Amino acid sequence: GRMISYEAKRLGYKVVVLDPTPDSPAGQVSDKQIVAAYDDMKAIRQLVEETKVITYEFEHIDAAVLETVEAEGYRVYPSSKSLRIIQNKYRQKSFLQQAGLPVPSFFKLSSVDELYEEEPKYPYIIKTCCGGYDGKGNYVINKKEDLTNLPSSFLKREVIIEEYIDFERELSILAARSKDGKIIYYPVVENIHKDSILRTTKVPAQIDKDLEQRVFSIAMAVMRAFDDIGIFCVELFQKKDNKIFINEIAPRPHNSGHYTIEGCITSQYEQLVRAITGLPLGSPRLLSPCAMVNILGDNSAAGEYTFSGLEAAMQSEAAYVHLYGKKTTAYQRKIGHITVLDENAEKAAERAEAVLDSLSIKCLEG
Amino acid sequence: GRMISYEAKRLGYKVVVLDPTPDSPAGQVSDKQIVAAYDDMKAIRQLVEETKVITYEFEHIDAAVLETVEAEGYRVYPSSKSLRIIQNKYRQKSFLQQAGLPVPSFFKLSSVDELYEEEPKYPYIIKTCCGGYDGKGNYVINKKEDLTNLPSSFLKREVIIEEYIDFERELSILAARSKDGKIIYYPVVENIHKDSILRTTKVPAQIDKDLEQRVFSIAMAVMRAFDDIGIFCVELFQKKDNKIFINEIAPRPHNSGHYTIEGCITSQYEQLVRAITGLPLGSPRLLSPCAMVNILGDNSAAGEYTFSGLEAAMQSEAAYVHLYGKKTTAYQRKIGHITVLDENAEKAAERAEAVLDSLSIKCLEG
Repeated sequence: GRMISYEAKRLGYKVVVLDPTPDSPAGQVSDKQIVAAYDDMKAIRQLVEETKVITYEFEHIDAAVLETVEAEGYRVYPSSKSLRIIQNKYRQKSFLQQAGLPVPSFFKLSSVDELYEEEPKYPYIIKTCCGGYDGKGNYVINKKEDLTNLPSSFLKREVIIEEYIDFERELSILAARSKDGKIIYYPVVENIHKDSILRTTKVPAQIDKDLEQRVFSIAMAVMRAFDDIGIFCVELFQKKDNKIFINEIAPRPHNSGHYTIEGCITSQYEQLVRAITGLPLGSPRLLSPCAMVNILGDNSAAGEYTFSGLEAAMQSEAAYVHLYGKKTTAYQRKIGHITVLDENAEKAAERAEAVLDSLSIKCLEG
Repeated sequence: GRMISYEAKRLGYKVVVLDPTPDSPAGQVSDKQIVAAYDDMKAIRQLVEETKVITYEFEHIDAAVLETVEAEGYRVYPSSKSLRIIQNKYRQKSFLQQAGLPVPSFFKLSSVDELYEEEPKYPYIIKTCCGGYDGKGNYVINKKEDLTNLPSSFLKREVIIEEYIDFERELSILAARSKDGKIIYYPVVENIHKDSILRTTKVPAQIDKDLEQRVFSIAMAVMRAFDDIGIFCVELFQKKDNKIFINEIAPRPHNSGHYTIEGCITSQYEQLVRAITGLPLGSPRLLSPCAMVNILGDNSAAGEYTFSGLEAAMQSEAAYVHLYGKKTTAYQRKIGHITVLDENAEKAAERAEAVLDSLSIKCLEG
C-alpha cells in the first residue's frame, strides 16, 4: 500500500487507506487512514464516499461488500466480479480453463472425506478453495498415507484436487489493462519459492524466445478474459519439456513485481494508479537486469524489532533496501525486500543474497 | 522534504518534520509533523529531542538556533557552521576565495548608498548579503541610471557588489560527504534559468572532458573546504573561453538535482539520508541521459488549484510527473517537476517541455 500511495501522491492524488492496523505502513504515508476491518461495511462506505476510485492490494476482502458499493455506482478496480473469480480456486481454474488457458488438471470435492472413495493419481495437491495465502491452504500428497497428516484446517471445507506439476521453473508476468482497453505486459521473471514463500525473483527469466512469446500470449489472453481495469500477476509452472501451466492469478501488484520499482520505466504501483485513474498506461520496459529477494522474519526475533547490518548492506552498488515499517516481525513474515541491478540476473541475485545475509533482525528490548 | 522522508522511511527510519504549514507536502508522508516556524526554539528543541539526527532542505533558518542545539550535543547535518557561511553571500564568497576556489570578483558595502561614492565597473550585480532566494535579492546594474530603479528592499542593508559574469552556460554539480570523510560527486548538469528561476536541467551537460574534470575538482575542493556531512550543490558560470566561476553553494538537495530520482543509481535524497545516518554513500552513476523541467504556478490561477491535461502528459514514454501536493499555487511558485529519460539530454528536454505544455493549472472554484 505504501508504494501505491507514494505513486498516487506523486501524480497529485489524495489517498485514503483502510487498514485494521493503526498507523499501518500505507497509512504512514497517506493523507488519511480509516482504521477498520476489511469487511467493515460502515468503514468501506466511508472510504468510497471520500474517494473517487478504490482499489486493493490484498485479495482476502469481502467481494460482496465491494459488489454492494459497485451497485451503488462507486468505482472499484479491479471489479468485485474478478475478485470473486480469483478468491475461489475452483472458480478461478474453471474460468481460466473455459478461456482456453492451460491449467493443471483439477476437480472439486465438497470435503476431503471424499478422497477415501476415489483415489487420484499421485502426486497431487489438495487446495482449500478459499482463503489460502503463501502456501497456507496447499498440501502435497505423494502417497495415500500422507492424507493422515493433513492439517485439520483442510477438513470440512471445499477443496480442489490438482495435478502436481513437476516444474523446472516457476515464472510470473505482470500485465495491466487501462480503461480504454489497452493491455501491456512486463518481462517474464523467474521466481524461487521456499516453504511456499517467494524468496527470489530473477529478471528477466532465462527462457527461450518461443517460451517467452507463449507467456506473453497467455498474459494477453488472461487480461482479455478478465476484461477488467488494473494490474494482474500471472504465476506459471514451466515443465522440463517447456510446457507451461498457469498456477494462479493475483488481481493486484505482486511480490514478484517489486523489481519494477527500480528495474522498469513504470513501476507496477504507478501502473495501477494510471489504470484506475484513467491515465494512459506507462512503458513496462526493463531498464536493467535485476533480482529481488524478500526480507523475512526469522526465528531470532518476534514482536517489535529493529535491523542491524544496514551499513554493510548498503555498500553494495545499485542495491535498494526497502523496509516496510511494519511494527512487528514474526517467523517468515515479509518485512521488506532488496532489489539489486546488475549486468545479468544471476549476478544481481548473488549480490542480493549477500546484501540480505548482511542484514539481521534484532528484537527490541521491551 | 517529501522525498527525503520517503527515502528515510524506505531505509527503516522514522521521520519527524518541522514545517509551519499544517499538513505540509513532507508532513503528509512522514510519521509526524511539528507545525511551527523554522526559528521556533521550543519546536526545534522538541524536534531534536524526538530524533537522532536532524537536517534541513531550506537554508533560511536560524543558524544560531541550530548552533545552540549542536552545543548541547544534538546532531545537525550539515552543521550550523556551514549554514552560517552559506547564508551570508559575502561570507560565502570570502570562504570560497580563501579556499582558492574561483569566484567572480566582489566586495561588500554596508549600504547601497556608498555606490554613489565609488563607481564599480559596469555591468555588475548588487546582492543582498542575506535572505535572497530564486533571484530575489539580486539586481543587475548595466549603467549608473539603473540604480534609480533599485527596489527598496535593497536599501539600508549590507550588500555585495559582484562582477557580472557574461556566461555561456550555467552548470551545477551535486557532491556528498559521509561521516567517514568519503566524497562522491554526480554528473555535471546544465541549467537554464528564466527570471532567475530554474526552468530546465539537462543531464549530462554538453561540455568537453577538460572542463568536466575542472568542475569535478571544484566539487571535491568545495566539499573538503566545508568538511561537513550531507549533500551540497555547487552552481557555476561557464564563460565562452571555458573559464568557470562558482555562483553559489546550497548545503542541501537542490532543484537541479531532482533528475537523480530516476536518472541515477542513488537519488540526492537517499544520498543525504545515507550521509547523515552514517551509512556508506551510494553510487551517483547516471542510468540514462535525462532532463528536468519545473512546473511553476502561472498567471492563470492563484490559491487552491488542480491540474488538467495529465492524460496527455502521461502519454510520453519515461516521463515522470512529480506533483508536490502544495495546497496553493502562485505566480512562479514551484509546484512540481517533470523528469524525462531519453537517449540524449536534448531530446529529453524537448519532450519534457512538451509534457509541461500539455499540463495546465486550474483554479478550484471556491
